[in-house]
Amino acid sequence: MTKTNAGNFFEDFRIGQVIRHATPRTVTVGEVALYGALYGGRCAVQSSDAFAKAVGWPRAPVDDLLVFHVVFGKTVPDVSLNAVANLGYAGCRFLAPVYPGDTLSTVSEVIGLKENSNGKTGVVYVRSTGYDQDGREVLDYVRWVMVRKRDEAAVVADQLIPELPAALAPDQLGSAVPFLDRSAWDDELSGSRHRFADYRVGERIDHVDGVTVEEAEHMLATRLYQNTAKVHFNQWTEGQGRFGRRLIYGGHVISLARALSFNGLANAFHVAAINGGRHVAPLFAGSTVFAWSEVLDTAELPGRDDVGALRLRTVATKDRPTADFPLKIDGGDWDPGVILDLDYWVLMPR
Amino acid sequence: MTKTNAGNFFEDFRIGQVIRHATPRTVTVGEVALYGALYGGRCAVQSSDAFAKAVGWPRAPVDDLLVFHVVFGKTVPDVSLNAVANLGYAGCRFLAPVYPGDTLSTVSEVIGLKENSNGKTGVVYVRSTGYDQDGREVLDYVRWVMVRKRDEAAVVADQLIPELPAALAPDQLGSAVPFLDRSAWDDELSGSRHRFADYRVGERIDHVDGVTVEEAEHMLATRLYQNTAKVHFNQWTEGQGRFGRRLIYGGHVISLARALSFNGLANAFHVAAINGGRHVAPLFAGSTVFAWSEVLDTAELPGRDDVGALRLRTVATKDRPTADFPLKIDGGDWDPGVILDLDYWVLMPR
Amino acid sequence: MTKTNAGNFFEDFRIGQVIRHATPRTVTVGEVALYGALYGGRCAVQSSDAFAKAVGWPRAPVDDLLVFHVVFGKTVPDVSLNAVANLGYAGCRFLAPVYPGDTLSTVSEVIGLKENSNGKTGVVYVRSTGYDQDGREVLDYVRWVMVRKRDEAAVVADQLIPELPAALAPDQLGSAVPFLDRSAWDDELSGSRHRFADYRVGERIDHVDGVTVEEAEHMLATRLYQNTAKVHFNQWTEGQGRFGRRLIYGGHVISLARALSFNGLANAFHVAAINGGRHVAPLFAGSTVFAWSEVLDTAELPGRDDVGALRLRTVATKDRPTADFPLKIDGGDWDPGVILDLDYWVLMPR
Repeated sequence: MTKTNAGNFFEDFRIGQVIRHATPRTVTVGEVALYGALYGGRCAVQSSDAFAKAVGWPRAPVDDLLVFHVVFGKTVPDVSLNAVANLGYAGCRFLAPVYPGDTLSTVSEVIGLKENSNGKTGVVYVRSTGYDQDGREVLDYVRWVMVRKRDEAAVVADQLIPELPAALAPDQLGSAVPFLDRSAWDDELSGSRHRFADYRVGERIDHVDGVTVEEAEHMLATRLYQNTAKVHFNQWTEGQGRFGRRLIYGGHVISLARALSFNGLANAFHVAAINGGRHVAPLFAGSTVFAWSEVLDTAELPGRDDVGALRLRTVATKDRPTADFPLKIDGGDWDPGVILDLDYWVLMPR
Repeated sequence: MTKTNAGNFFEDFRIGQVIRHATPRTVTVGEVALYGALYGGRCAVQSSDAFAKAVGWPRAPVDDLLVFHVVFGKTVPDVSLNAVANLGYAGCRFLAPVYPGDTLSTVSEVIGLKENSNGKTGVVYVRSTGYDQDGREVLDYVRWVMVRKRDEAAVVADQLIPELPAALAPDQLGSAVPFLDRSAWDDELSGSRHRFADYRVGERIDHVDGVTVEEAEHMLATRLYQNTAKVHFNQWTEGQGRFGRRLIYGGHVISLARALSFNGLANAFHVAAINGGRHVAPLFAGSTVFAWSEVLDTAELPGRDDVGALRLRTVATKDRPTADFPLKIDGGDWDPGVILDLDYWVLMPR
Repeated sequence: MTKTNAGNFFEDFRIGQVIRHATPRTVTVGEVALYGALYGGRCAVQSSDAFAKAVGWPRAPVDDLLVFHVVFGKTVPDVSLNAVANLGYAGCRFLAPVYPGDTLSTVSEVIGLKENSNGKTGVVYVRSTGYDQDGREVLDYVRWVMVRKRDEAAVVADQLIPELPAALAPDQLGSAVPFLDRSAWDDELSGSRHRFADYRVGERIDHVDGVTVEEAEHMLATRLYQNTAKVHFNQWTEGQGRFGRRLIYGGHVISLARALSFNGLANAFHVAAINGGRHVAPLFAGSTVFAWSEVLDTAELPGRDDVGALRLRTVATKDRPTADFPLKIDGGDWDPGVILDLDYWVLMPR
């Protein structure tokens, strides 16, 4: 009987199982400042209490992706410690604003299980929900991950492939954002005169800038999220593994791409939902990340004339500038520089 | 007459001398967040205001070792700037909780002096006490350090080898912890169902995980503590020195081992005392740190049925996993991978 | 019509043009803690609420240079994104204290324009002013920078070389500092018994210590300031450029030198003004920074008997200790180790 956490193996999960994860975490201005220094985001709403108050928040809210990473990190020791691969996520909705001082905790429900034909692994589908200290839902999302079996002979009783959430509909967006006084939105301070109505479906934007990633940076970030996945931290073990390197947390790439996208999407002040995403290739320290975005859709929000939604595809690359919008080669294989393909909704003032 | 601090040499110290150290330091949620990102600790009490309040604190207290490092850092310019070696510490007690916003300062008293027979160095013993802004003692400990003489001919009048504190007794533990409502202690949120009664003397726990250390990380940490020891920061000088490398602050290793020990000791929410410790070998950036622990003793605390104390030995290694609990070879020399051997008391809910 | 910011080119500027920069930024204890960990400053006033209150502040003010960097960072996307060289700055005055929670924003006015004879570039002079959330001026300074033309054929109408501010006069110093109770200034806690009257014009101080800079550190710092200059972050591009390396933000060197100068100037609690400065040579990660200072002048402040001002030259070097006060060789070329020559006023208690 060991007291260390060996994580759950595929046969340990049951449909309908509910896991309350450790560790609840109070997110303070300390986390906010460090998150800022790790990515360099410049959205006025999250950077400035004064700007946020002028348009309708009580104070600057915590960056959406910082909330996501903290909520996500808690699930790792229970869900993905024995994961072979993180296969995808879907249906991620940001439901309520989080402010410095709020305490986040996470509960997951197993909504699907499917053993692989090799008998060695299976796919676990979980819906994870983040709560604040008052029990209010701030975030939920589905992810699915391939997990090893402890014992190949173990029988897995009930299996089910759940219906995965499609892209979120516009009427599911925006509950984390107060009604904004858009006349008080100052385009000079926010960094762009381009608002919701200025973007067109099919428009593509090269975010131009690149940022090189260091080992110390991604490890600080991943620990900030209390994400314990071993591959990010242990060079001794990883040096003998598949890549010979520490693998950078996929969420770090998402946050880098989001910060880069300010150059072209400065008024996209809120990630309202993540429809899905794929980590196409791994990222290692020393590489330089670039990003471009395409507007997949635009939508008004029912009952709101203050903000509109853009559905974006943001593609990140490593060691490859994105002026030519790299994605796939001849419509087939991924361009070898692509590392992330993310489909999500952002809000912009109208 | 220089205005720079040349530090004290052995002959500058006097038995009974009291040194009020610079610089008082307010520890905020900013320091707390950065400390978290540097080590990745997951104790619920220090991570969550909500968890801490539920069991009896007014809010999440500052991590004990962060308090230790800040109190310790202040002593470096006066005590160990001319040190050849940090020989040991003992009798370290955590006396009162520290909360974000508290200001820490340190006073040391010289309690022992012993010149070495070579006439070039001597051992200085100091008792250092950390205070908060109201003058309340939050921490005290003894350390002894070998310090160079400025002038080999200098005569050192009064010498004394002090009686070093033995391991702290259980009745000296726990004053930094309010009486806890252990029925409100949520084992799912804290990360383990194993409480005080589940640990046995002689039990050994491999903490499994390893973490690689980068130069930027240990320098950020050591500056966070305002610890000015030159060997940690100056590659130009150290590159020409004994190791050819910047040496990592020993306290960084202690904090890494403490964070790793969460995996197996998740409910050990408080370091109540450090009985003694030895930095067996130096650590340099690029190495991966592992740790294991042994339960040396268990003790109830007089008058308290909320918590119990475990006396632990935690051993850290570099570039050497610890599944076989490495310590000494044939009971003699240290295993070449061992870098830290720490003897301390932690508290756990009963 | 691109939505990304291409920055302004020389012909885009007009004399008298006013630019309100994005992004307003709330500076919290989070930024303060990270700034501390990046540089290791030990001034008691900025480190301790208790110390600051004892002598006359309502709480510990934000470090002057952190304010400078945040105010400066905002100007980069509008003023120097297409800069060839940052030529100088002058007349920098710290006008009001900044406390954690204050929101900083920046407005610049173009005060000079001078096309270079090659027709490819020109010099832009701006006066930038930092404001807090109540519109109070906290900082202003002039800088001039050589900016590329987009179109060599573009005609630049009005040109003007402005009169640059000379060194600030003593009566322009100190408005950011409340009247201090110098009897409450505790020299043991502040780290030095040397006050204003102890320094003499011509006195030179070697600050002794050296600190090696890592890529992760300077990038964290520069993002903390939301400074977006590309040369600091993008190894992919810079690797093909003039230096083959990411260039470290000049302000990072200033903050490193300021922190090193504590050893010899511990009571210089406030940078009151920067008269001028020159980044003599670039700094790259892996180098070790040293510093020395000379007292250029001393001055009483009209109507104040609590503090006095020292005008300092602080010189920073890379990979070159400063015991011999390196500056120029035979009074001509710069010593090859020198990277910074800074002329500024600090305040000290009398």
